Amino acid sequence: MSGQSDFHAAWSAPEAFRALGSRRVTVVGDGLLVETVRQEVAQATARFGGTIVGDTGGGAEGGADLILALNTQPDKPEPDAESFTVARQNGVTTLLADGAAGLLYGFFHLVRLGESAFGADHPAEHHGPAMRLRMLDHWDNVAVHDVMGQVERGYAGGSIFWADGALRSDLTRVRAYGRLLAAIGVNAISVNNVNVHAVEARLLTDRLDDVVALADCLRPYGIRVHLSVSFAAPVVLGGLPTADPLDPAVRAWWADTTQQVYARIPDFGGYVVKADSEGQPGPFAYGRSHADGANVLADAVAPHGGVVHWRAFVYNHHQDWRDRSTDRARAAHDHFAPLDGQFRDNAIVQVKNGPIDFQPREPVSPVLAAMPATRMAVEFQVTQEYTGQQRHICYLAPMWREVLDFRPWGDGGARIAEVAAGGGPDEPGGGLAAVSNVGDDHFWTGHPLAQANLYAFGRLAWDPTLDPAAILDEWIGLTFPRDASGVSDLLRDTLHSIMDDSWRDYERYSAPLGVGFMVRPSDHYGPGVDGYEYTQWGTYHFADRDGIGVDRSVATGTGYAAQYPEPWSQTYESVDQCPDELLLFFHHVRYDHVLHSGSTVIQHIYDTHFTGAEHVQRARSLWAALAKEDVIDAEVHARVSERLDEQVRSAEEWRDQINTYFYRKSGIPDALGREIYR
Amino acid sequence: MSGQSDFHAAWSAPEAFRALGSRRVTVVGDGLLVETVRQEVAQATARFGGTIVGDTGGGAEGGADLILALNTQPDKPEPDAESFTVARQNGVTTLLADGAAGLLYGFFHLVRLGESAFGADHPAEHHGPAMRLRMLDHWDNVAVHDVMGQVERGYAGGSIFWADGALRSDLTRVRAYGRLLAAIGVNAISVNNVNVHAVEARLLTDRLDDVVALADCLRPYGIRVHLSVSFAAPVVLGGLPTADPLDPAVRAWWADTTQQVYARIPDFGGYVVKADSEGQPGPFAYGRSHADGANVLADAVAPHGGVVHWRAFVYNHHQDWRDRSTDRARAAHDHFAPLDGQFRDNAIVQVKNGPIDFQPREPVSPVLAAMPATRMAVEFQVTQEYTGQQRHICYLAPMWREVLDFRPWGDGGARIAEVAAGGGPDEPGGGLAAVSNVGDDHFWTGHPLAQANLYAFGRLAWDPTLDPAAILDEWIGLTFPRDASGVSDLLRDTLHSIMDDSWRDYERYSAPLGVGFMVRPSDHYGPGVDGYEYTQWGTYHFADRDGIGVDRSVATGTGYAAQYPEPWSQTYESVDQCPDELLLFFHHVRYDHVLHSGSTVIQHIYDTHFTGAEHVQRARSLWAALAKEDVIDAEVHARVSERLDEQVRSAEEWRDQINTYFYRKSGIPDALGREIYR
Repeated sequence: MSGQSDFHAAWSAPEAFRALGSRRVTVVGDGLLVETVRQEVAQATARFGGTIVGDTGGGAEGGADLILALNTQPDKPEPDAESFTVARQNGVTTLLADGAAGLLYGFFHLVRLGESAFGADHPAEHHGPAMRLRMLDHWDNVAVHDVMGQVERGYAGGSIFWADGALRSDLTRVRAYGRLLAAIGVNAISVNNVNVHAVEARLLTDRLDDVVALADCLRPYGIRVHLSVSFAAPVVLGGLPTADPLDPAVRAWWADTTQQVYARIPDFGGYVVKADSEGQPGPFAYGRSHADGANVLADAVAPHGGVVHWRAFVYNHHQDWRDRSTDRARAAHDHFAPLDGQFRDNAIVQVKNGPIDFQPREPVSPVLAAMPATRMAVEFQVTQEYTGQQRHICYLAPMWREVLDFRPWGDGGARIAEVAAGGGPDEPGGGLAAVSNVGDDHFWTGHPLAQANLYAFGRLAWDPTLDPAAILDEWIGLTFPRDASGVSDLLRDTLHSIMDDSWRDYERYSAPLGVGFMVRPSDHYGPGVDGYEYTQWGTYHFADRDGIGVDRSVATGTGYAAQYPEPWSQTYESVDQCPDELLLFFHHVRYDHVLHSGSTVIQHIYDTHFTGAEHVQRARSLWAALAKEDVIDAEVHARVSERLDEQVRSAEEWRDQINTYFYRKSGIPDALGREIYR
Repeated sequence: MSGQSDFHAAWSAPEAFRALGSRRVTVVGDGLLVETVRQEVAQATARFGGTIVGDTGGGAEGGADLILALNTQPDKPEPDAESFTVARQNGVTTLLADGAAGLLYGFFHLVRLGESAFGADHPAEHHGPAMRLRMLDHWDNVAVHDVMGQVERGYAGGSIFWADGALRSDLTRVRAYGRLLAAIGVNAISVNNVNVHAVEARLLTDRLDDVVALADCLRPYGIRVHLSVSFAAPVVLGGLPTADPLDPAVRAWWADTTQQVYARIPDFGGYVVKADSEGQPGPFAYGRSHADGANVLADAVAPHGGVVHWRAFVYNHHQDWRDRSTDRARAAHDHFAPLDGQFRDNAIVQVKNGPIDFQPREPVSPVLAAMPATRMAVEFQVTQEYTGQQRHICYLAPMWREVLDFRPWGDGGARIAEVAAGGGPDEPGGGLAAVSNVGDDHFWTGHPLAQANLYAFGRLAWDPTLDPAAILDEWIGLTFPRDASGVSDLLRDTLHSIMDDSWRDYERYSAPLGVGFMVRPSDHYGPGVDGYEYTQWGTYHFADRDGIGVDRSVATGTGYAAQYPEPWSQTYESVDQCPDELLLFFHHVRYDHVLHSGSTVIQHIYDTHFTGAEHVQRARSLWAALAKEDVIDAEVHARVSERLDEQVRSAEEWRDQINTYFYRKSGIPDALGREIYR
């Protein structure tokens, strides 16, 4: 399919299926997902000369090189199991799946392995996902929004689901998307924006047909569909006088409405809710807590096996910049930590990775360590709202790994990845969720190299211990093979050179030392050093002629540092112990303050901004050099070249605005005498 | 009409016609405009008990108290004359008009005089307009623009001409507008935005019917209709391969097209053009000058008595903020001054009052003194784009008077008013033009008190020596009489208290000392101190930790000061002589620089910002006090109250952002210890 269509194959390049497609393959089992695998095998073998040999079960009869089998006699029945075992013995590779989804994931595991799946014999290896829920949130609007358009914070064209107020009539691309997601292990999608506008609210009721169609489309890929709903739905859609979550009529309305959803979509995933946040309705209007709000929905989906994702992104978005006592960073913890233990077992509190809003550098949200009795999901933003909007190369997996590896309780304590994964079968975590970066752009993600972020998200949700560079390498191998010889070394090396460290380069040339939000208001692209400084949004840097930063210490500041457990509360509290990269997030310091690195704050600002922009210039040169070699499609090369031109321009603009701003403020010249405009 | 309609009567309050309407009146003459006067008299006398007595000509026959007569035997025929003579003799008031328009203007002159038109005898007084052209430009779009809406920079609802892509079917309000404008002497309107989009371009050709309808509507009020046209019209509408103004086919197209316009609208006024500015097409594309561009249009309208208004608002709107050598303030003079003498006699160069863009304080544009052999129009902005957007009270007549009174050549030299008026019948000037502040809002202007700006513009175009407070007084008298006793003293005093000095208050609490453009980008409402500092727009303040301002001196800056004749070039060049209110427009100085006022720059900033906000708070209190008295319609009172609440909020926001910004930059505390946030 993908090779002949009018959109890019992404990490399902036909060549990636060569190793498997040139084998004799047996597929054993029945059911929807097994059929998906069987079709994949048929397609691959047809292309590469392999064959499907009779599914006679278990052995090497029929001379199969590869046997893909559903374990129909597991120790205990696990029809939904996503795990699988791979072994190679006597020159035959065997994949034994614990459930139908496991067969699908195992199939793509073998595709990733390529020829190495057919090398030396090896004993059985068991694979399964670290996180039970691996979810993508689409901030897609059904009706084009006046300000936010078809996809809120989308940088890749329109929605693949919706166009101009309706479901797309051709869902070919949705199926292709499902296939791409199955290949990286994503098993849940919410199909509409968390800011639920009027038309979108009705997906729950009279527009349910559209959701049914999407669920039908994605089911063969093991993906359950979730819906963002309005907390005010009982009023807006149900005609009730209230949406009070403790009102019996409201509870009944949610139960009945949900019952009707499941009647049409038996594997419906559940609800996503942004409540009492940035103008969305919520339980506060009725004097109820977020737990009350989440639980009424959780109770409605519980009989059907659904879950509720309740977002913790709650803060005062009408703050007064004059007021130094209110700290937006504190808000989610202040609201949610006291509610630990009050949420239902099928209610998940979904927490952005940092306390503010997806900046290139934030500390890990303390909420994630504050609710041990609650299922917690970590929310990442794959769409690059604050990280270059898919006009900049910014490979985010290294940032996500830092978050997942963070140990809130210090050395020896659990990692954030373990918080999200939960404590085992009986204590499931909330998993990972992320805002998708996909649209109807030919390359799916606008910038072709931004595909790697979506790929890496899925892989990390499956296995948060994967190395970002290794994930990138996988992605390169699946995306850019042009023939049997695979990906050229030059291309592979170039991509690593320009992508591996691209997030840190973005950090270098944008807001310094964790201070954040020096972006152009509203559209969030490019520099605007004072852009949010005097606004209602609670995102300030407080730069004056002497220094910069937000004092979030307990001793002299907002007290936010105390929201962390030991040892981090003390580490962040101390201006001497605080990591350099977060210094301005936690402290207001003088420009001549000396960092652990030995540099002053002001010299660090100058140095990183010159370096960051230089790295982007170098990336453009490396990419341009590929033009002379036949290592990549001209179309991909041209699109990336065009975006690199813009990235160079934008990085230089960041460099100059930031440097000039701080030179004007501090009056301190660059120690190296480089050009800083007055 | 106005009293019974669903829009506000503005300065045509029925009560304003009481004195005239209670007399016996004779109207002598024939023709369209005389009929207008006759209808006005009939309406007024019907309401107030007067009568129309036979138009037997010349004397007191029939017992008339008032004779309004067209002078049918002037020394020389002047059918278009707008002047008139008023005398009172033997208890009879006589108005003798030199032309039909003069009769109309004389009628409204008498309305303004009220009872005093019927007081003691007095010899003949001759009245005529200082400016031949007194024009309002409407930045109204026919089709709603994606970004700019129905009316670009409009703050009073939709357009009174256009709605949703078409001419309004009911033109009642256009007629009422014509009447209001006749009462203040405006004699020309351009009916569409100077940014001419696709639909609007076609008003010139296949949508000409709409222009005909508007011309028919406004003709009885002595108003000629003008059209903003696209310089690219020969290509866009005519299908020609070029719009080169020296191309014979282009010249022929303009001539033919214009001929067809005049065939339908014999008194069509002419064209308004924004060329080679902010993305509009122009002669530069063909290597031609603005004079070449203007002249091809001027030649097309010349045979029919039309004129071309060619705007001088031309500058590089893709400037690099790093580049200190380019100065937007210089641009119009650089482009236009060398072209003096090259424009046709019916081509008018229309120049914004200041060199940048309608800021609350700018020096007078040096272009106005640089083209003695060219007809020059001064363009004001009645719509309050940068002066509070009709949410703030900002009575602009004092600013306009300062501009009109400015003597570019020093004491004894001509005033700007005289530049615009021209040198007599054979050397007509370009007059005054202004961007209208009117929309389909009930009060016409959103803020009811913003009507006074439109009123004052017309009155100053007629007589630029009028005192702003006296004009305001006239407007109060015509707008707020509730019965035979007229306007209450309390209301009159209150309005003077809150309006007379409101422009200077706006200046006080916004950008200081002429530096300008510390506004929120794009929408231009409220403070954004660094909002334009690192943009493409050429509007910078260069504030750093030591000082602020733009060095436009010849000695060390951009050289803009030299664009003025002596003595101003030397006055502005000198940091010691430069007037305080323009200091930061011309010089970059330290925060501790001592002004002529004796205050330092920084203390001036603090003082004016506290004072400006206090004055607005006081205005709100004064206005609130009226609620207890029955001196004004509840509807007007409520609207103004609501806007004053917003003005207080906004003025305080200006005060605090500006003060905090400069405190953070300078580190210098307020000498009076008032609250400045950190």
